[in-house]
Amino acid sequence: MPSYTAPLEDMMFLFEKLRDNKKYNELEKYKEVSSDLVKDILEEAAKINQNLILPLAKVGDENPAVLENGIVRTPPGYKEAYKKYIEDGWTSLSCDPKYGGQGMPKTVSAFFDEMLSSASLSFKLYSELSIGAYNCINHHASDELKEKYLPKIVEGKWSGTMCLTEPVCGTDLGLLKTKAEKQNDGTYKISGQKIFITSGDHDLTENIIHLVIARATDSPSGTKGISLFLVPKFVVNEDGSVGPRNGISTGSIESKMGIKGSATCVLNFDEATGYMIGKKDKGLNAMFTMMNLERIVVGIQGLGISEIAYQNSLAYAKERKQGKTNKTKSTNGADFIIEHADIRKSLLNMKSIIEGERALCFWLSQQTEVSLNHQDEKVRQEASDFVSLMTPVVKSLFTDLGMEITNDAMQIHGGYGYTKDQGIEQLYRDNRITPIYEGTNSVQAADLVFRKLSNKNGDIINKFIDLIKSETDLDNEKIKPFTTQFKYYLDILIKFSEWINEKTKTEKDDVSAAANDYLKTLGFVSVAYAWIKVLDVSFKDYNENKNFYDDKINTAKFYFDKVLPRAEQHYKSAISGSSNIMNFKFN
Amino acid sequence: MPSYTAPLEDMMFLFEKLRDNKKYNELEKYKEVSSDLVKDILEEAAKINQNLILPLAKVGDENPAVLENGIVRTPPGYKEAYKKYIEDGWTSLSCDPKYGGQGMPKTVSAFFDEMLSSASLSFKLYSELSIGAYNCINHHASDELKEKYLPKIVEGKWSGTMCLTEPVCGTDLGLLKTKAEKQNDGTYKISGQKIFITSGDHDLTENIIHLVIARATDSPSGTKGISLFLVPKFVVNEDGSVGPRNGISTGSIESKMGIKGSATCVLNFDEATGYMIGKKDKGLNAMFTMMNLERIVVGIQGLGISEIAYQNSLAYAKERKQGKTNKTKSTNGADFIIEHADIRKSLLNMKSIIEGERALCFWLSQQTEVSLNHQDEKVRQEASDFVSLMTPVVKSLFTDLGMEITNDAMQIHGGYGYTKDQGIEQLYRDNRITPIYEGTNSVQAADLVFRKLSNKNGDIINKFIDLIKSETDLDNEKIKPFTTQFKYYLDILIKFSEWINEKTKTEKDDVSAAANDYLKTLGFVSVAYAWIKVLDVSFKDYNENKNFYDDKINTAKFYFDKVLPRAEQHYKSAISGSSNIMNFKFN
Repeated sequence: MPSYTAPLEDMMFLFEKLRDNKKYNELEKYKEVSSDLVKDILEEAAKINQNLILPLAKVGDENPAVLENGIVRTPPGYKEAYKKYIEDGWTSLSCDPKYGGQGMPKTVSAFFDEMLSSASLSFKLYSELSIGAYNCINHHASDELKEKYLPKIVEGKWSGTMCLTEPVCGTDLGLLKTKAEKQNDGTYKISGQKIFITSGDHDLTENIIHLVIARATDSPSGTKGISLFLVPKFVVNEDGSVGPRNGISTGSIESKMGIKGSATCVLNFDEATGYMIGKKDKGLNAMFTMMNLERIVVGIQGLGISEIAYQNSLAYAKERKQGKTNKTKSTNGADFIIEHADIRKSLLNMKSIIEGERALCFWLSQQTEVSLNHQDEKVRQEASDFVSLMTPVVKSLFTDLGMEITNDAMQIHGGYGYTKDQGIEQLYRDNRITPIYEGTNSVQAADLVFRKLSNKNGDIINKFIDLIKSETDLDNEKIKPFTTQFKYYLDILIKFSEWINEKTKTEKDDVSAAANDYLKTLGFVSVAYAWIKVLDVSFKDYNENKNFYDDKINTAKFYFDKVLPRAEQHYKSAISGSSNIMNFKFN
Repeated sequence: MPSYTAPLEDMMFLFEKLRDNKKYNELEKYKEVSSDLVKDILEEAAKINQNLILPLAKVGDENPAVLENGIVRTPPGYKEAYKKYIEDGWTSLSCDPKYGGQGMPKTVSAFFDEMLSSASLSFKLYSELSIGAYNCINHHASDELKEKYLPKIVEGKWSGTMCLTEPVCGTDLGLLKTKAEKQNDGTYKISGQKIFITSGDHDLTENIIHLVIARATDSPSGTKGISLFLVPKFVVNEDGSVGPRNGISTGSIESKMGIKGSATCVLNFDEATGYMIGKKDKGLNAMFTMMNLERIVVGIQGLGISEIAYQNSLAYAKERKQGKTNKTKSTNGADFIIEHADIRKSLLNMKSIIEGERALCFWLSQQTEVSLNHQDEKVRQEASDFVSLMTPVVKSLFTDLGMEITNDAMQIHGGYGYTKDQGIEQLYRDNRITPIYEGTNSVQAADLVFRKLSNKNGDIINKFIDLIKSETDLDNEKIKPFTTQFKYYLDILIKFSEWINEKTKTEKDDVSAAANDYLKTLGFVSVAYAWIKVLDVSFKDYNENKNFYDDKINTAKFYFDKVLPRAEQHYKSAISGSSNIMNFKFN
């Protein structure tokens, strides 16, 4: 079983030293979230993840969720762990105190999401969609629905799902067939089949609150006729107690490459009672509130699994002896593989990506809080635009690099990485869903280039570039080598953005073919931007903690020398265009 | 279950049009291997792989090999299929007629290796090491051993293994502990534990011939004291019949991420009778004959699995509708995903890599045959140097790109790629062993930069560069855009090679840190070289088969525009050196 120690020092460093968004620091509601409080929370979070949840990862892989007589049973130990998890209040961490939540900002809850992803993604998924459902209901449902459902969801007694996908509609929701028939009492009867529903059924909670998109019988076809419904597994009585079973059954659960502890369900809705959320035919907008926040969390999953893969690779490299290094001091026998250049390079590749991602994610958490909670609408909107821009980047880049890092972790472990004993190959298999679900990474890239670079508020990418230009124009002599390198790749991003802008007008297929490359270039430059912020603190506060900051500076150096240059390769490959690709005749 | 159709047209194209090595064409023994004969063989090969072996892949994944009461049982159907497989003579395809083989050149048997890898890698592994053992015994053992063991191995009634790895020695064989004690009759008693032994035990053959490296009791420590032994599972009587069980038992078999149908064994040798092969203390040299040929076959495994991943991705992209393209003609509903730019790009990435690899492999097969069979020792040596140079490249590049391609295949299939039904995720899991076994890809890269670029015969890499320079300096106007692009990347390879040469003298750690990058640059340029050969024929013989050659030209164009540029990125990343990597203090 892989070991795991939550990276508390790095998290606290970010919380104390990188909380540099002025608008975030103006937020009244978080004035009392002190470093001491956060440290206490993260220490408790580390304990439950390291001790209680981590062992569930292997258990879930070896004893997958099963469907027995129509009922989904979670792996052994999940029930007991979930009970403790909700008793300790972890579902409610970032929820509104009005409904029983603890009101912590995403700058804190994102750290918890990372730890939980490191410990067990399968276990995490049982509560993750509850938070998604909470966000969606909280933003779009009537007060009546909120008061009836939110307290139980926040408490963790009830859980939530997102029911979007159908057999013929994954990425393309306009194709959906599930229908909603209005009843005289204002409720709807929902009928249809939903597939790939994470935590669609299980035995951890008293009730499951499904958020379902469906088409009202009198609505138009395509995406313009989609509404959102709250459909509980058990109908909830007037007094809030759990009533009779609703018309929902579990058709089957999927046998998957990984996240085997998580039940991925086919759900059949047969005239199930549902309650409309938000406006009719505007269901996709409401669902996207949930989806967008969720996509960032999927990026964090990639980060969390990368972290545990790195920790175990590092530990193994320190204890495994094999071969002699170029400058060996050993007269007989082999050196530890951590002394070998290629292993060191692989480890630094992981470390420099992980720490850069964590810093970027912290920047994004601040922006997200500003976008949701700042009192000035203009400020909220600007932050929201940055969050929208960065959502597909974080989702795709972090999950793709998560594949690279878990793959490299297997390689460092050699044959022992391929066999099941050490649990390394499971990290790859569990992480492999992250580039697929919540919109495949190609869908994210298309979303980025066609919808996120500019919107009705103007040219978002240029505002972002201006922001990072102004924040990386630093006059410290020691940081100059980094900012000089950074500027070279920022210029590539600028040229690439102009190319995308131009081609969007003249040849959209060029943009489609370049979308993944553009996302990567923007992503690598954004992570470098986060590193520059880390470096700025590292040089300024160097004497406070030399070892820590030396580590940061040298890790950053690796990122700038060996990782960031990939941004250019993506640009060069992309600008050769798409005519050959589009004209190609596949046999 | 994935479907598979052997790419016979491409294989026959290579055999007929790319057999351009003059020295190969001088080989007497292959004068009678006509196109018609090869076509017949490949058509039969396609049948057995498509019809009999392909279904065994899923069977083996769902019913792994098991160890019961000390005996390894292969998955259901393996026994019957293996019987048919040897009856039809497939084990003997490339073996010497002297021992019952069919004497086909590697230019043909490599195609068979590819097909079998596409159909089922697990099944393939039961006969693959037999060929390895055959090669090793044939080159190094006494006539007595050859006559006693080879006919049965060639016939497929007995199989072979390579027993190298021990718990503390994988890459670093100098650490091995298995000992060999000489007996009065000239035989040895072998004692020790070997792990990760592919096909170490199974129920498909009457006997298993283990090739074991061990240290004679009076030999020195390290790699200089290693000898090679033939150790049969059952001792073979004087008359060639199978005698009593030898002192070998199966301790356990591994539970693995993939190739679950293949039994990966822990073998305990307890005073097992063994016969020395070759000279005492020279066992590693003999073993490397086997290893080097085997490493090329592992590269071919990566190619074969890439091919089936591509075929299924293409088929799925043609039947799955999702989203509208930029130039959609559909007024309602979605377009086939093969119309989307990013899916087309992913498919062309696969196709251009696969066909380029196959062409390079065909070039290498010709060189291998020349290195083994040409009558002029100087010609043999030169070819052997090229084979040595290209062995780590083919092993590592093809298997790493196999990971990329099977990973992309999952992505094209979306959620259906992650679930077990379609068998796509199995392709990834099966292929994942290939960058690890027969020497990890990092070991290959170190082998390349430190031992293969030059040897006692001089500067091999420069001879190779001169060869490809002379063969790609073509005056056809149509090929110019390709050769111009090629020259740019060849110059990068030249600069990179000079940098490696220089750093080998001054700072070996820089070379170690750059080794993987250098291997990739050399690999991408070598595949491009193979593409230039294909293009040359395509333009010259264009009118013979316009559709086929158009396909080749446009696929090559993708390779040159979108794949080959990666060579530069590897160079740029590498030359930033290793001092930061080597000085880094890992916590």
